[in-house]
Amino acid sequence: MSKHLLIVSTSTVYGKGYLGYMEEEIKNFFGENKNIVFIPYARPGGISHDEYTEIARKKFEELGLSVKGIHEFENPKKAIAEADGFFTGGGNTYVLLKQLYENGLIEPLRNAVENGKPYMGTSAGSNITGLSICTTNDMPIVYPPSFKALQLVPFNINPHYLDPNPDSKHMGETRETRIKEFHFFNDQPVVGIREGSWLEVMGEDVTLCGELSARIFEQGKEPYEVPTGSKIKF
Amino acid sequence: MSKHLLIVSTSTVYGKGYLGYMEEEIKNFFGENKNIVFIPYARPGGISHDEYTEIARKKFEELGLSVKGIHEFENPKKAIAEADGFFTGGGNTYVLLKQLYENGLIEPLRNAVENGKPYMGTSAGSNITGLSICTTNDMPIVYPPSFKALQLVPFNINPHYLDPNPDSKHMGETRETRIKEFHFFNDQPVVGIREGSWLEVMGEDVTLCGELSARIFEQGKEPYEVPTGSKIKF
Repeated sequence: MSKHLLIVSTSTVYGKGYLGYMEEEIKNFFGENKNIVFIPYARPGGISHDEYTEIARKKFEELGLSVKGIHEFENPKKAIAEADGFFTGGGNTYVLLKQLYENGLIEPLRNAVENGKPYMGTSAGSNITGLSICTTNDMPIVYPPSFKALQLVPFNINPHYLDPNPDSKHMGETRETRIKEFHFFNDQPVVGIREGSWLEVMGEDVTLCGELSARIFEQGKEPYEVPTGSKIKF
Repeated sequence: MSKHLLIVSTSTVYGKGYLGYMEEEIKNFFGENKNIVFIPYARPGGISHDEYTEIARKKFEELGLSVKGIHEFENPKKAIAEADGFFTGGGNTYVLLKQLYENGLIEPLRNAVENGKPYMGTSAGSNITGLSICTTNDMPIVYPPSFKALQLVPFNINPHYLDPNPDSKHMGETRETRIKEFHFFNDQPVVGIREGSWLEVMGEDVTLCGELSARIFEQGKEPYEVPTGSKIKF
């Protein structure tokens, strides 16, 4: 089976509940793969693995899916072997990646997804599907042993992509400036996914879905927009 | 001689030129220390060390100070030994810290400043004066060998501190949320310095200067404001 991913910008869009804007897509995505292992390692707001798993479980049960937190297994590698599919929630990308490395899960998770187990990620959980986490927006609150990520797609992700605010008087860098700086030191493309949009990956095919266009950054080119429904290819 | 630092939130406030809002303070700060070594390693927008040094040189010459880029010395350790004082400009904190580690400059620079050579930093150049760079706002576009910083003050810095925008519909974390997450994994205080403000360090004394209050984050406490002119002490 070829790989199948949903790489989602954000779990929550303004004014709607947790994953409320894409319930049908999640149901269709997992299909008959009902036993989902949730990876709560990104711990948004510092909440515990148990608390975070409850949030995901509640929503997924509404959609007819069963959820078990990876931390509930004695051996997290066994969780990966037993899962029908995966959902990695958002939070802090560094905390997430460090825990995956510490538990020796990078290769097992990557292999499971390459071999066809569906993987859905939101925000930090999307970031780690790229080549590296070098285009995360998060604060580096812990030091992971590497910035290399799952490398399930041949580019980097920038979730929660945010356009410059022309009225801002703040002098911090815009998102676009940051990604341009990234390209002084790295050559992979970056896909900026706006809130409410996501990528669906089927084998080597990558399609932009959801309401909004995405912004693409390639080294040595001006950034450009691709409309929703487009295939993304480099 | 005791240490003397200016830890500045931003080089540029909205509507004013480079360092234009604090010219008198810079002159007074360096005083008779006229031969300043500029550290351009943070490379804002990816500009070269030469280009960046020219920007700093132009402004510092207007103030009667002489500037040489650390990269202009054959041996950057010699630059640190020969300098009367230091100015580290903003840009990307990871790029800056990585270059300092690669050139073996963390200890020499720290020692020179501990022994009394004045140090001014803006933005990324301020970030590295804290215990770690774990409260930078920057994108991790390169992987430094550690997040440990110069440790010239017993806390972390968050430059360009930004209050939450109550009108925002963006679901990315606010700065305050990010720093709260930091405190799930780290126990040092964080000083959020707003644009237009800075800390002046004299020995163990830390004073908030400039127009605005600062926001202080301590583990296990609600964040609080300190007015400009206050001593900051933990």
